[in-house]
Amino acid sequence: MNSSLSTPERQPERIKSLGPYTFEQFKDLAGSFHGYPAPGLLIGGVMVSLARSRVQPDTLFDALVETSKCLPDAVQLLTPCSTGNGWMKVLDLGRYAVTLYDKYTGQGWRAHIHVDRLAAWPGIRAWFLKLEPKQSQDTIRLFQEIQQAGWDYMALQPVRVRKTWLGKAPSGAVAVCPACGEAYPERHGSLCRACAEGEPFVRIRTP
Amino acid sequence: MNSSLSTPERQPERIKSLGPYTFEQFKDLAGSFHGYPAPGLLIGGVMVSLARSRVQPDTLFDALVETSKCLPDAVQLLTPCSTGNGWMKVLDLGRYAVTLYDKYTGQGWRAHIHVDRLAAWPGIRAWFLKLEPKQSQDTIRLFQEIQQAGWDYMALQPVRVRKTWLGKAPSGAVAVCPACGEAYPERHGSLCRACAEGEPFVRIRTP
Repeated sequence: MNSSLSTPERQPERIKSLGPYTFEQFKDLAGSFHGYPAPGLLIGGVMVSLARSRVQPDTLFDALVETSKCLPDAVQLLTPCSTGNGWMKVLDLGRYAVTLYDKYTGQGWRAHIHVDRLAAWPGIRAWFLKLEPKQSQDTIRLFQEIQQAGWDYMALQPVRVRKTWLGKAPSGAVAVCPACGEAYPERHGSLCRACAEGEPFVRIRTP
Repeated sequence: MNSSLSTPERQPERIKSLGPYTFEQFKDLAGSFHGYPAPGLLIGGVMVSLARSRVQPDTLFDALVETSKCLPDAVQLLTPCSTGNGWMKVLDLGRYAVTLYDKYTGQGWRAHIHVDRLAAWPGIRAWFLKLEPKQSQDTIRLFQEIQQAGWDYMALQPVRVRKTWLGKAPSGAVAVCPACGEAYPERHGSLCRACAEGEPFVRIRTP
């Protein structure tokens, strides 16, 4: 399964910067955006930097993230792609991996955690594979190891994202739902999806 | 359908601040995070501010967004909730509405666009209901109208988010997929979802 893996050419000795930020600045930014500087977000920052190092600077790229945990926030902090602009897609495949790809051709680079290469990084390995209870985790040491390791335990592979995943469906005309009175995309049908399929909440009557 | 709607008590004459930012600062932040200061993101900022004005300051709240377009980024910029920390859920119901709710009880406030009240704001109405082609949109005037209108054309309602939407499923133990060699949540089955259901990309062999 590793025959087509591309190993990064350059393994930084120690991560100095992530995008326009120093490692410390990114840690602070991660804390303010994400609520706390989660190890997964810092590892995500390294991973996004790795994938982005192969994308040509003038490429308009989208992001495809294979887990909903932490990594999407690294993409949002270090690239123009976000949940709200639709340039980042999150699939809950459960794998800690991200692909940055040309939004027109689908050609891009996928970075992921290479489990075998984690052997050299016991703190990251224990965290990633959940080998130790969270309470006994030495967070400061883990952060140091993340910075020290760089992308040593990651792998990069060229991929081509399938056509069905490229572009956005045009949202089209807007209708007003006869049941709730709110606007929704006409293509959803004669009622909005919330009225057709149920709402995730109960409305509380006010006196 | 409007019997249980709560109208905001205070309709600001002109939006001066959105969270810790001035309107202008938020516009700049929206531009850098989202790629451009989309009208939907500015309206989203006003909407998030409206919902948040009713949440008690010491409440740990989650966010439920009913559209994937623009509004999620307003939530991410103005609250601690993000895609990667799991405190924001995005449902593609197609309605421009957000609920901020106590993450333990589900009690919260839902803000949405009140279509009838848009009559007083023709620029926002034309944009929201897509009554004019994008090319003929006067963006500067639209931004001014958004700032002027405040939350005049929005409505707020107390809701209780259903129990099935509260909390996060614990991710549990980690397994290594025998097919791709990557780590994934053991509860997904004997293969990771990507290997079981297919990948959204084609792997390109390197020479």
